[in-house]
Amino acid sequence: MEQTMQDYPLTVQHVLWRVEKLFCRKEIVTKREAGVHRYTYGDFAARVHQVAHMLERLGVRPGDRVGTLAWNNYRHLELYYAIPCMGAVLHTLNLRLFPEQLAFIIEDAGDTVLCVDASLIPVLNKIAGKIPTVKTIIVLNDGGDLPAHDLGETLDYESLLADEPTTYAWPTLDERAPAGVCYTSGTTGNPKGVVYSHRSQFLHTMSVLQKGCLNIGEEDVVLPVVPMFHANSWGLPYAVGMAGAKLVLPDRWMGDGATLIELCQSEDVTILAGVPTIWINLLRQIEQTGAQLPKVHTVVCGGSAIPPALMAGMEKQGLRMLHAWGMTETSPLGTVSIPRSWQPEEESLAIRLKQGPPIPGVELRIADLSTGAELPWDGVAFGEVQVRGPWIASGYHHNADPGKQTEDGWFKTGDVATIDPDGFVAIVDRTKDVIKSGGEWISTIELEGAIMAHPKVLEATVVGLAHPKWVERPVAFVVTKPEHAEATTPEEIRDFLTDKVARWWIPDEIRFIAEIPKTSAGKFDKKVLRVNAAPLVEAVAT
Amino acid sequence: MEQTMQDYPLTVQHVLWRVEKLFCRKEIVTKREAGVHRYTYGDFAARVHQVAHMLERLGVRPGDRVGTLAWNNYRHLELYYAIPCMGAVLHTLNLRLFPEQLAFIIEDAGDTVLCVDASLIPVLNKIAGKIPTVKTIIVLNDGGDLPAHDLGETLDYESLLADEPTTYAWPTLDERAPAGVCYTSGTTGNPKGVVYSHRSQFLHTMSVLQKGCLNIGEEDVVLPVVPMFHANSWGLPYAVGMAGAKLVLPDRWMGDGATLIELCQSEDVTILAGVPTIWINLLRQIEQTGAQLPKVHTVVCGGSAIPPALMAGMEKQGLRMLHAWGMTETSPLGTVSIPRSWQPEEESLAIRLKQGPPIPGVELRIADLSTGAELPWDGVAFGEVQVRGPWIASGYHHNADPGKQTEDGWFKTGDVATIDPDGFVAIVDRTKDVIKSGGEWISTIELEGAIMAHPKVLEATVVGLAHPKWVERPVAFVVTKPEHAEATTPEEIRDFLTDKVARWWIPDEIRFIAEIPKTSAGKFDKKVLRVNAAPLVEAVAT
Repeated sequence: MEQTMQDYPLTVQHVLWRVEKLFCRKEIVTKREAGVHRYTYGDFAARVHQVAHMLERLGVRPGDRVGTLAWNNYRHLELYYAIPCMGAVLHTLNLRLFPEQLAFIIEDAGDTVLCVDASLIPVLNKIAGKIPTVKTIIVLNDGGDLPAHDLGETLDYESLLADEPTTYAWPTLDERAPAGVCYTSGTTGNPKGVVYSHRSQFLHTMSVLQKGCLNIGEEDVVLPVVPMFHANSWGLPYAVGMAGAKLVLPDRWMGDGATLIELCQSEDVTILAGVPTIWINLLRQIEQTGAQLPKVHTVVCGGSAIPPALMAGMEKQGLRMLHAWGMTETSPLGTVSIPRSWQPEEESLAIRLKQGPPIPGVELRIADLSTGAELPWDGVAFGEVQVRGPWIASGYHHNADPGKQTEDGWFKTGDVATIDPDGFVAIVDRTKDVIKSGGEWISTIELEGAIMAHPKVLEATVVGLAHPKWVERPVAFVVTKPEHAEATTPEEIRDFLTDKVARWWIPDEIRFIAEIPKTSAGKFDKKVLRVNAAPLVEAVAT
Repeated sequence: MEQTMQDYPLTVQHVLWRVEKLFCRKEIVTKREAGVHRYTYGDFAARVHQVAHMLERLGVRPGDRVGTLAWNNYRHLELYYAIPCMGAVLHTLNLRLFPEQLAFIIEDAGDTVLCVDASLIPVLNKIAGKIPTVKTIIVLNDGGDLPAHDLGETLDYESLLADEPTTYAWPTLDERAPAGVCYTSGTTGNPKGVVYSHRSQFLHTMSVLQKGCLNIGEEDVVLPVVPMFHANSWGLPYAVGMAGAKLVLPDRWMGDGATLIELCQSEDVTILAGVPTIWINLLRQIEQTGAQLPKVHTVVCGGSAIPPALMAGMEKQGLRMLHAWGMTETSPLGTVSIPRSWQPEEESLAIRLKQGPPIPGVELRIADLSTGAELPWDGVAFGEVQVRGPWIASGYHHNADPGKQTEDGWFKTGDVATIDPDGFVAIVDRTKDVIKSGGEWISTIELEGAIMAHPKVLEATVVGLAHPKWVERPVAFVVTKPEHAEATTPEEIRDFLTDKVARWWIPDEIRFIAEIPKTSAGKFDKKVLRVNAAPLVEAVAT
């Protein structure tokens, strides 16, 4: 018996079909230097067709890679649709990479065309002359003069589009054709390319929209504060199109709490998404100004664990955070923490601080850090999270780092977690950050959460440093709130921790610093801290 | 550039994985002769493994067809999971087919094993000796004596399971392997087999759970009154498992309003699903008893168009109906009518009476009934609905009726509809039912809706009969509410219609009948009416 279902390929073209056929009147709003740019999905779709004509005219063919170095704005969104729909590959360039990394990934992916925001020309200029694969540079510009550069001739996106037809005959695509590529931020070694297929983008979108996942509907207004140059902006560019939700884009003002508040209020935003550092800033802004965001029903937060004090503080402002977990290699969504109906209401906050159960389409397990054996879901045993599913990486471009797959085909995430009997994942660390002290594991993330609950602390991170007796001991790097900069002592932090973590978890040293170094994805950069840290006093003494 | 995503097959096994890993403590409740049967998803999953062992022991191999002749109950659900997960094919037998049709589809599918509810043995007995492919008959029995039959030896499901191990090593499946087969009800010619793949079942499930579709979450309690022996019970058996929703099954008491009310109240049901005739009965029961269903937030309704009076009556009882459209060949969900945020609240009822826009994964168009040309989405032009997507039939088993596909690969549904500029489909008829009178089209569904709004009318259906001058003219067959049986005249129905439909749409004759014949799927059977109807008075006169 043969199945009799249509062989309909799962592609980004279907998302565009919905945008054009069902949601033409919905809006896409982009923050600008002054005011906003506003147009409809109908206007957007017509320009997507024009972009495809324009790129074809410039020589882009199916399979070719087109790089984008751009913030969260409507032109970047047009490229998100036009490039894969015409069969080419969207390569989102992480503008926070070091120049040599940026040059490396452009060459590694073989980008022939780059589309760059005018405001980011200085970033690209740092690698002028070092990107031999690139034949054409197209500038996305609101109209001003370009910054000085040594990039040679550049073309203007708007001028190129102006006369292109607004209907492009999209080719029939194989669902396993590449749609996009994104490089990991490469905290260790060179960045590695994760190549998304049309199939993976389509399926990720189908999961994101479910009631038990991000629960996005047509009536929602979504403001992604997570960069479109990294990890598909958590899949939101396609998810909003599939659902027909109104989209609000912050362009380069992502770290600016006042701008975010203003956009939420003026555009009736209902769903926000971003990393904890964004929300730490926003919360301070809200607390200082008394601003209200009554329409926002969900603040999706991922990228690193939500500090408990942040979730509690947001909750006090009526802002419910939804903890999500994933990475570039998982497209990126892997888990979302929505409490189950059987879980008691009084445990809701604690449950929502976990990363949550896998979303439909994703399977998870944890493996012992030493032996690799599968561990029970008892909420106690912790091991490396391994994951599989149709939007999980099977490897990297050019077969980089093949050791990230298990022999039976699961992706090794490098995250360390427990899983409770209800299937809720709680990330306790990264395999490279977890501290083994005297033969026992210490979770640096849990320690950081405990320290950040101290009322004088703004940010904190913990790394393990070499110790003559215990092999490693934890050291906390702490940034105090500006008003407490002078008046906070290591002792009061350590005292604060005594009833919150095991005695032997309390950091040997508390070091106050002005700022915690961040990775290109906005996460605490522990590698930089570890490399530059002075050794433990006790280690020097012996 | 090659994509680097895992080649993870989309199968029903993933749904079972979620049931086992994430939702073990959730409940499945089945109505019984006395009281209910209640167990957890954990108990269920263990038995699914046992069923696979049992079927394997009985000789079932990957690709083999196993038929089920059963109501909506937990054993049928076990078969829904065990059969496809072991690589065999679930063939749900429509117990309302004529005996010769039932025998035909069992042989056409080549079922080797049949699983039959004890209460349905009399149905199967009618074809005893006429099902040569069947080697084994397994009876699903709550424990009583079996009805007398001539089926030869039968095996007992519970006895067979009792000693089987509760872990089965599921094979790795190709996502395009067949998972299930369901035959159309065959109102014209022999029933035709639609063969679902694992891929189609998985993808359908991913769409059903979205906020913009049936919006089912873990916290919901779903009562499918749509039979599990037809069109996948609208995909609910897998959707509830994927979401982890509590499931309440009515077994054979689907047409019994009092039982449905009792189940809703005792089990805190939030979502109901069924055809209009079910809700017509339920509404009468509610109106007569004053019963309240405060927990129910959605009554999904499909199979045929919702009469406006039904939706208004349900609304008055606080029951919001969600109109869905589809058919066996579309797995079955194709559209769901949720008003858009831009549509005015005062039009909400009218909008929800339409079948709605296509759900994510489905593409639609309408084609001129005469020329086949694609028609505009203007809410006026009406033509045949054509559809494509990964869970839409590309044909039938044994290549029956190949004319149902267009040359460019769309499925011809046989439904006639308009599509408005917002993409909302409004089904106006079936291609075989729509009336062409004097060169103009008359929608029988619209006429029926108008007649059923009459306070004395319980049910009504309209067919076209031959007319010497106009080629066809509409005739209405009307069932009055019992209390008005004697006191309703054709004239008052015709008068009632004068300001509701075009003058020339008003049926030439109104014929009162005791009951409208129904198809096996519970729809009005117009073919039976047409075949048996006396000719028009005017046609006889000339």
